[in-house]
Parts: sequence; C-alpha cells; structure tokens
Amino acid sequence: MTATETPARTLDSYVLGAWQRPPSDGAGQVVRDASTGEPVAEVAGQGLDLGAVVAYGRTVGQDALGALTFHQRALLLKRLAQHLTGVKEDLYEVSLRTGGTRRDAMVDIDGGIGVLFTYGSKGRRELPNAHLLVDGPPESLSRDGSFGGQHVRTRRQGVAFQVNAFNFPVWGMLEKFAPAFLAGVPSVVKPASATAYLAEAAVRAIVDSGILPDGVLQLVSGPARGFLDHLDVRDTVSFTGSASTARVLAVDDAVIRRGVVLTAETDSLNAAVLGSDVEPGSPEFTAFVASVVTEMTVKAGQKCTAIRRVIVPADRQDAVVDAVRERIAQRVVVGDPRADGVTMGALASVAQKEEVLRGVAELVAGGGQIVVGDLAEPEVVHADGTRGPAPDGAFVAPVLLRFPDPDAPAVHDIEAFGPVASVLGYRDLDDAVRLANLGGGSLVATVASADPAVVRHLVTGIAPMHGRVLVLDRDDARSSTGHGSPVPHLVHGGPGRAGGGEELGGVRAVEHYMQRTALQGTPAALTGLTGRWRAGAPSSTGTGHPFRKSLAVLRVGDAVESGPREVTLDDIAHFADFTGDTFYAHTDEEAAAANPFFPGRVAHGYLLVSFAAGLFVDPAPGPVLANYGLENLRFLTPVVPGDTLRVRLTAAQITPREDEDYGEVRWDAVLTNQRDEQVATYEVLTLVAKE
Amino acid sequence: MTATETPARTLDSYVLGAWQRPPSDGAGQVVRDASTGEPVAEVAGQGLDLGAVVAYGRTVGQDALGALTFHQRALLLKRLAQHLTGVKEDLYEVSLRTGGTRRDAMVDIDGGIGVLFTYGSKGRRELPNAHLLVDGPPESLSRDGSFGGQHVRTRRQGVAFQVNAFNFPVWGMLEKFAPAFLAGVPSVVKPASATAYLAEAAVRAIVDSGILPDGVLQLVSGPARGFLDHLDVRDTVSFTGSASTARVLAVDDAVIRRGVVLTAETDSLNAAVLGSDVEPGSPEFTAFVASVVTEMTVKAGQKCTAIRRVIVPADRQDAVVDAVRERIAQRVVVGDPRADGVTMGALASVAQKEEVLRGVAELVAGGGQIVVGDLAEPEVVHADGTRGPAPDGAFVAPVLLRFPDPDAPAVHDIEAFGPVASVLGYRDLDDAVRLANLGGGSLVATVASADPAVVRHLVTGIAPMHGRVLVLDRDDARSSTGHGSPVPHLVHGGPGRAGGGEELGGVRAVEHYMQRTALQGTPAALTGLTGRWRAGAPSSTGTGHPFRKSLAVLRVGDAVESGPREVTLDDIAHFADFTGDTFYAHTDEEAAAANPFFPGRVAHGYLLVSFAAGLFVDPAPGPVLANYGLENLRFLTPVVPGDTLRVRLTAAQITPREDEDYGEVRWDAVLTNQRDEQVATYEVLTLVAKE
Repeated sequence: MTATETPARTLDSYVLGAWQRPPSDGAGQVVRDASTGEPVAEVAGQGLDLGAVVAYGRTVGQDALGALTFHQRALLLKRLAQHLTGVKEDLYEVSLRTGGTRRDAMVDIDGGIGVLFTYGSKGRRELPNAHLLVDGPPESLSRDGSFGGQHVRTRRQGVAFQVNAFNFPVWGMLEKFAPAFLAGVPSVVKPASATAYLAEAAVRAIVDSGILPDGVLQLVSGPARGFLDHLDVRDTVSFTGSASTARVLAVDDAVIRRGVVLTAETDSLNAAVLGSDVEPGSPEFTAFVASVVTEMTVKAGQKCTAIRRVIVPADRQDAVVDAVRERIAQRVVVGDPRADGVTMGALASVAQKEEVLRGVAELVAGGGQIVVGDLAEPEVVHADGTRGPAPDGAFVAPVLLRFPDPDAPAVHDIEAFGPVASVLGYRDLDDAVRLANLGGGSLVATVASADPAVVRHLVTGIAPMHGRVLVLDRDDARSSTGHGSPVPHLVHGGPGRAGGGEELGGVRAVEHYMQRTALQGTPAALTGLTGRWRAGAPSSTGTGHPFRKSLAVLRVGDAVESGPREVTLDDIAHFADFTGDTFYAHTDEEAAAANPFFPGRVAHGYLLVSFAAGLFVDPAPGPVLANYGLENLRFLTPVVPGDTLRVRLTAAQITPREDEDYGEVRWDAVLTNQRDEQVATYEVLTLVAKE
Repeated sequence: MTATETPARTLDSYVLGAWQRPPSDGAGQVVRDASTGEPVAEVAGQGLDLGAVVAYGRTVGQDALGALTFHQRALLLKRLAQHLTGVKEDLYEVSLRTGGTRRDAMVDIDGGIGVLFTYGSKGRRELPNAHLLVDGPPESLSRDGSFGGQHVRTRRQGVAFQVNAFNFPVWGMLEKFAPAFLAGVPSVVKPASATAYLAEAAVRAIVDSGILPDGVLQLVSGPARGFLDHLDVRDTVSFTGSASTARVLAVDDAVIRRGVVLTAETDSLNAAVLGSDVEPGSPEFTAFVASVVTEMTVKAGQKCTAIRRVIVPADRQDAVVDAVRERIAQRVVVGDPRADGVTMGALASVAQKEEVLRGVAELVAGGGQIVVGDLAEPEVVHADGTRGPAPDGAFVAPVLLRFPDPDAPAVHDIEAFGPVASVLGYRDLDDAVRLANLGGGSLVATVASADPAVVRHLVTGIAPMHGRVLVLDRDDARSSTGHGSPVPHLVHGGPGRAGGGEELGGVRAVEHYMQRTALQGTPAALTGLTGRWRAGAPSSTGTGHPFRKSLAVLRVGDAVESGPREVTLDDIAHFADFTGDTFYAHTDEEAAAANPFFPGRVAHGYLLVSFAAGLFVDPAPGPVLANYGLENLRFLTPVVPGDTLRVRLTAAQITPREDEDYGEVRWDAVLTNQRDEQVATYEVLTLVAKE
C-alpha cells in the first residue's frame, strides 16, 4: 500500500456465531479494485482458531440442522433465495470491484441465488419430509421374506469445509453450501482472497436476514492454514481451484489416513468441437462461433468451464478464426465495468493478468500462433468514459491462438485462465474425439452439429472423459444455458485433470454429504428405521378405515382389507364395450388363448385397478382429498371370468407438506385372487389433510 | 524349500489371450498348505510386461465388451455361473489347501458364483438392453422445452485393475470382475500370493469354459510391481487389503496426477452391539452370541467383515463372555479341514498366524485380558483323525479378550486378523454409539435388539460411520445372511478406516466403472443419444398404428394420436356404479366443489386411463402381446362432464429380451383435454413380439 492510499478495512470472519475482525497485523494482503488498482480491503494475515470453528459446526451447526427435515431445510433455502434477490443490487455494486460487468455479476450472484432456488424446490419435490434418505428399492434376502435389505443415507457427522476459487465468490459459495445445508451438514467457507470481500458481503446479507440457524454457515475470511489438521472421517472438503493445490490436499493425512472425503474441481482444458457437417454460414457455425466468443469474454474468460480448445475440421480453421475475429471486433468492448457499453471487464487482479500473459507466452513457445488479439497493454474504456491504457488495472484483450500441430502438448496442458482460446484442426471424427480427450478429463465440451450421426460419434467418443457435454444446433442455440454455465440440475465436475469430483446435479449433490449404509433386518425393523412400510412388515386394520384418518392420526402401516368381488365375463365384456378397449385378449376367447401369456379371455388391467378402487375407497368426504397418481403398477397374474378379487391397501409413506394444510400419502396396494395369488401390485398416491 | 520337498509348480498367468508360465528363477515365493506346511505352488519372482497386459485389455478387451449390450454381458455372467457351479467340487478340493473348511470354501466359491448369478439377473432386470445407462430423470432447462438435460453413464475406456486379498481368492475376484464386466470394462486380476493357486484354478475353469470373449479377464499370478505406472484416467483400481498398502496406492501419481479412480476396502474393526434391552437367555442374546462365535471361527476369523469389538451393556459382560466360552467349547473343533468333524480350519499361512499372535499380544499390552482361549500352540485334529499339535500348520485357537477400559485405544485400532474378538462394556446407548464409532469407519456392525426404540437409537447413531448395519432379532436370527457376509445386492465397503470405497450393491457397482456425464441439448438430440424418447422430441404417426409393429420394425418415436372422446356425467355416474368407486368427488357435486382441488364432480382417474386405452388400443391380434404394467401416472387437470379427451401414445423405449422372442416396450402416454391441457401423463409397459 502506498502512503497516499486510504488504509483498507480488514475483512471480517463470521465464526462461532459472531462477526470477528482480526487485528491488522501488517502481514495481511491488500486486495485491489481490478479496474483501477485502488485498495478494496485487507485480508488478515493471522488465522483464526480453526479447531474451534470446526467444533462449533459439529455441535451447534449439526444440532440445528438435525432438528430440521429435508423439507424444512429446503424452505429455508427458498426464503434465503428470496431475501438475497431483494438485496442483489447491493451485491452487484460490490461485484464491480472484481472487474466484472453487470452480466458477469449476474452469472455469479443470480447464478448463486438460482442454486438456492433449485435446491429449495428440488429438496421438497425429490426428497422426503424426513431426516433420512431411502436409496433405491427394497431388496429381499430370504426366501420366507423375514430378512431384507435397504440402502439409506444419513448425514455425515462433521462439517463441510469449502475452499472456493476467486472467480465466483458468490455462486461458488452457494453451490457448495446449498446441498450441504439440505443434507444437514454445516458449512465452513473459505473464500479466495482476491474476491473475499464479495463473499463477505454475501454472508453479511445472509446473516442479516436471520433466516439460517446459528452454526450452519461460518466464513473464514483470513488464512486457513492447516485446516485439514482439524478434520476427520466425519468431514468433507470441497475444493475448487488449481490442480496443484488439489494434489496437496489429496495426499494429506486427513484424506489418506483419517478418511476426510475430498471433492476437487480443478483446471480443465475444455473443448468445443465443430461437427464435420457444419459449413460456414450455417446456423450451427454461427452458434459455435458465438459460443466461443462468449466463453472467451464472459468473466474475462476466468471460468473453469470456458472453452480453451476450439477443435474444428482442418479445412475450416481459417473460417472459424475469421469469424471469431470479426465477432470480437463487433461485440467486445474492454474496460471498467462502471462505464457504459463495456462488454468485457478486467481480470480479478494484476497477479492474474500476469499469470495469463505468462500462460499465453507458454502456449506460443509450445507452438501456438496468435491469430486474434495481442499481449500489448490494451486500450480500455475508463469509468469516466475516456479511453486509454490502464496499467494499474488487470486488463487483457481477447487472444485466439492457432496450433498448426494439433498434437502439440502445450495446447492440451497449459491453461491461460483468461480470455484465451486455441484453434486446432482435426482430420476426421475419430481424430476429433482423440484430440478432445487429450485434455485428460474435462468439465465440459460442446459438440456443434446438425447431423445425428456426427453427434452420436462425437458424444459417445468423448462422454467417458467429460462431466458435461452440450449438443449445440440451430434448435437450441437460443434457448441453451450455454457451454460455460453449470446448472444446478446437472452435475458439475469431470474426471482426471478436471479433479475427478462432482458437485450439483440436483439431489445427487446432497448425497455427497451423506453416508450410504446398507441396512439389513426384518421388514418390521426396516420399516421402523426408514419410515417406509415394506411388504412383510406389520400392518393394522383394526383402527378404522385409514381414509378416515388425517395426517395427525394416520400411521405408516395403517391398512384396509376389502371384501371379495367376483369378476364376471359380463364385467369384462361390459368394460370393453364401455371404454372401447376391445383388445382381443378381453374379447376373443380363441385369440386370447393363443397368446403366450393368457389362458383365455382375461380381465383388462384397468378394470382390475378400477374394481380395486371400488373395493378400498371410503366414499364420504373426509381427510383424503384426491388421488393424484399411481406408480409401479405391475400385472402379475391374469384374471379370468369367475376369479374373485380382494385388495389390501396399506399406508406406506407419509409426507406432510410444510407450507400446505395437507400432504402426500403413498399407499401400497396388493390385489389378490381367490387362491391368494398376487394379481397386481402398485402404489396409490393421495393428498390427505393434516387435520 | 527344504531339500526333501518336491519342487512346487510355478503358477501360470493368463494374459494376452494365453497361459504363460514364467521361468522359475529361484526368487519366487513357495506357498504352502495351511494345515500341513507342504508346498503347494511357487509364485514367480519375475513380473510380466504389465504395460502389454493393460494395452491388451484396453484394445482387445474393450472391443469385445463394446460389441455386447448389458443384457448380453449379463447372460454370459449367468452362463459362467452355471458352468462354475458344475465344477465347484474341483475348486473345493483346491480350497482345502488354504486351511478352510468346506463351509469356508462355500463362502468363497459359492459366494463368488452367487455374485455372478446376481449380476446375471440384475443386469437383465435393472439395466437396459443397450450400451449406455440413463441416469435419473430428464431435466427441463428452458421454458419453451427446446433445451434439456439428461445424465448418462458410459463405460470407462481402460481396464479395471483388481488387487485382491488372500482370504477370498474366488469371491474377491468375482465380486470385482462381475460388475466391471457388466459395465463393459475388462479386468486384470492380481491375486494375493498366499492363495493365488486357488484364483488360478478358478480362472482356469473360466477360461476352459470358453464363455468369455478374449481380453476381458487377465490374471497376473506373479508380482505386479509398478502396475500403477501403466494406468491413467481411463482405468480403475479396486484394492482389498491392508490400510498401509491402500495409502501407498492413494498417494501415487497415477491417482493424484493421472486421474486413476481408486476404490479401497481395508481393515475394519467391526462392532456387534448388544441392545440394552437384551437379557441373557432371550432369543436375541442367543443369536448375538452365536453370531460372535460364527464370526470368530468362519474362515478362522480371516474376514474383513468379522466382528472384532463386542460392545455390550457393562453389566452383561460376564454373561456374554461365559456364553461365548460355552458355545466355543460345544461347537468349535479346530483342525485340518480334511478331517471329519472339524469346524474351524487353519489360517492361510504361518506368516498370518504369526501376525495374529503378534496382534493379540499388542491387544494384551494395550489393556486387553484374554478371557477365552490362549496363545499356546493348539491341539488340533489332523487329516488322519489323530489329535495333537501341528507346528507346521497355521492354527490358532479362538481368543476372546475383555477390555476393562472400553476407551483403550488398542481395541479400536489393532486388528488381529484371525479368530479374535474383544468385549467392551457400555454405560448407555449414547456410549455404545460412541464406542462403535471409535472404529473410525467400519464395513459392518450388528445391532441385536428387540426394542424398536433401542434399534433406532443405535442404528441412526452408527449408520454415518458404517457401510452396512444388520439388525438382529428373534425374527431374522435364522433367515439372516449373517453379519460377516456381504451380499451382492447391498454395498460392501465403509467410510474412513474401512477404506472409503464401495463395491457390490447391485447395479451401483456397475456405475463405478462408468463415467457419469450430463448431456445437454434439444429433446431430439437427447432422444437420439440415449435411445429414450423424451417429450418434445419428434414423433411419427404417419407409418401406421405402432401396435401393428413388431420389435423388428418399431422405432422409438413411433406414435398414435387418438380421436376425441367426450366424458359425460353419465359416464362418471355409470363408472362409479359399475366399479363401486363412489368417492364423493365423482358423485356429489356440492361436496366435490368444496374440495380444494376440484371445481365440482370430476371423472375418476381410472376412468380416464380406461378411456385412454380404449382410444389408443388396436384390438386385433398382433405383435403387442400384453400390457404388463404402468408407471409414473400423474393426474394433472381434473376432468369435468363435457370435457373431451385425446391421447397420444409414443414408443419411448424398446428393450428386446436376449432369450425370448419378445421384449418390453415402454410407451409415453399423454392425455389432453379440449383446451390442450395435460389431463394425465404416464408410461404404459407392454410386451411386444420380435417378429
């Protein structure tokens, strides 16, 4: 810091239930505005007592989350998303200091809020309103049905330690926090210093909202040296950053000896492949070039998902280079994001700028030729609208390289983490697959083609080496969420060089914070542990018709067993006539008997479930509000005229809704004939009032 | 080898499509009969060209498996299981040399064959007859439906390198091989030297059967030093063995830098917890003691899943110790498994015996008191029926220890890998949970209790630290598959000290050999890539009614769109009367209107799907043989009298059966009203003839 500068505020940490400002000890790091170089904040040089932070999460945080069901947690995420939406303009303002444009800020801030909304929604739609996840179907492990298995997931008993990268201080934090929170595991967040002030601002907004229980989100704004020493088998570490740091974590005793579960998302030399069918001027060509330029310039190319390798038919390299050059000239204005008309801001710091320039120099040394842009200090638009160089800012103009030798190791190994991409030519589709996979495992690739055979060849070839593949054509060019944008519904991560981890992907990410355990026992024991009734477990028909019970009194295992009903030939003939379902198996004795599965004319499956409803329904108004669906219906034994049906309906799962005065009840239905053979099994889905 | 012994045969490797016998170079290791000390075989001292082995798997093996669908691979597993069943007596004979009894041999050999049968069955029931797995539901990513996401799994492009432990040479090999094979990834098997002759015999039986394609299973019977140097992001390593070796693998550059996916299953100090409700003499007490003795003596306690820590109420330690002592005295006869009446054999080698004795000494030094058995050379039954010591054999008598201090670190840290367990007393259930979890992550625990509250307390407390938990009570004591037996349906593995890996668990294990990739694109592109039709993709009604098409001509996307049908009040009233489903929403206008979901009297859901069938069915005999079920039915919009229905049925997934002349067709059904609102969506499951 020069003598003329205002001393920067030292960033606070939010730990142990309170904001803590470390003393400014002179060893801190001053973080500067990416466009102007002015100091923004100081990141403390002294660390906190991380052991206490971890212990606080494991006790206070775990207790708070343990008291909540998945649905209750999901609702808090939704409320938090709504709250942050209301204050996002304040965060945009802070975000300007990172060098990003408003569009960049939206990727980070709205993107993060979108993750909260998605988990708030998926948590209630796809998870039970319970504390434990049932994983997969019941398994029967004994002939007599007295012993079975069921996988479940229970939350890990420690903290989720999250180490984030500088490029997405808000999204990077929330995309890790949301699934951990939903799983019931408290987060400890360590932001990257360069943009830690924006993470701090976001956490301040979260804390001020008062929505989250204490201990579930702690922020360590200063150094976190030695944090692994405090972690063990109960804890997880999610790391986003460089491969070299990920390797240091991966070999630590915490991971190797103490069982800390590590997920890493690291560098990735993502490819975009132009199909061999795509000619210049076609919609796919235009969409491809637009995507390349977008990925070079959004966040000034500082995205782990950005396109680094532009793999195109060898004879179309010139066309692609020319089109990229033209689009950059037309669309890209580099400058301070506070100025009107700027479409690409600065890198996050001067250090990053130097890193990028060094990367480009290495690419050139490795055989690359710069064909668009250069490494000179660019003329940029200043905040006041004037133009000129800004040596205190972290500006780099977009740079496209071309590699005459597509096998040059440098292009498959060196990531210049800025507005930089390289063009490679391929001979044929196998060659394109080979080149894409030379990245050694990537987060994402785009395949642009309108030919299904080309798409199939390329996608099946590269899928095993990629976490995400986007197929771009004229029909999704406008609606696509884009090559570089992870979406919370889909996994983010990739094999090999990309770190080998997975984040997001809907409830898949929740499972990351939970241990899968195979439970074995009697149906009664498994029902008791999972809250889901399973065949063979006790059920009770002695407490009145379950359709007369509200959620307040209904219990898993409450059942109704119907009296018998005969199915006559008249019933079958009438049903065929009434519904128009005159399929021969129901109407033609001779033809039906010739069918390999039927002894002769049989009842319609839909007749059986209709009769079953007539047998189990309790008709008067009551707590059961509606039958909203049915699942897993299987017809097991044909029903012939003269057979007699009975049905048994058992309450199998009860899911009260947090924000409605009703909930879902899943009923196990078993339809049997006069020989006690199962005729059909299925699950009936109903809405039932709470009171 | 002493001068008087016959030189042992050097074990062969099966690599590059042929058996190879390495030259006996004098550096090999002689493996001995566990009971008699006689030489059985020599394991070569010189290694093979592992680079060539890996390359052979990646080319010849990958090509062979790539030509097969999941169902075709599953059928080969079934055939292999049948073949091995026919030759298993030969394998039992070889197994005697390991020191194991016939029961032990069955655990290993029949257990391994059982894994093949399970994957042969599950592969056809739970996987598509295709080359790619669809993972989870479709995700919609744009408002207009033109862009969506779908997770898929594609097989990794390398080999599955499998490093097995000495205790289960057949099961350990097959439980890793079967899921890898089903996934489409070739295996390279490295057995442990001590019992490599039995693995060799099993592979010989497999190769001789001629059932498997070339290159999909290679056996490296000698040293495999440096095998990781040949592996990269395409490959997986599955390791079973010591934690110390697992750590060496985990920090190797292959894993840390090149992205090899490592799964480890290591030591585990598994617990059995006696519930606070269980009194001596009760059925649970008896079952608990029987389980402890079984786990001490089967395979002479050489199971990574064996019970090592017997955690019981402090006031019942004496009762448990006495009952274990009594049962051992009554039931356990130690000796050469070739002798009649022997119920517990030798350890696998004299080296193992020494290791176990050392472990027990360390447990004693750490505070344990031997309360059953001792470390003296036991009197054993020889093959000829005589009794006496057998110092050349690897015999250890069962040893039970008791730890007055249940927190003694030794008992939670030292695994004596033989017939050895330790008793610990707990104060209350929280204390029991705490003690069980001091194992630092285990493969399995048993909870014995007849009290659901006790079961819940213990199981929910220990589940996050365990891969499997068995609830033992009077009702499953006889039918249980047992504490120590992994079953192929359920995951085998555990967090932390247990290695952090997962094997088995049905098709979950197949996924381990596949990369999950999030595909993004138009519905048409995603349908083309996955072979599953999704809403919004093109469909074709112009080629005739799809019910008239056999599997030979039916294509995904073939559809039928029905004409309209009005639903009248008479229809609803009649259906209520006919079926008996007189639920008020269908019969009482006023009561229905008071329901929060209905505008007034509405049609029964089952009436709608029945009418829909009448609309889409093509009645005459043809390739469609039966409707065997229905899935994911949701009623979306109520239908009131006067509404008009249409239905669109589209072939969504086609699954020919390999061993039948028909297959499954899943149809996407959408029922709409006169305003084109979706009334109901569901999937119809049919059986359709191939020709």
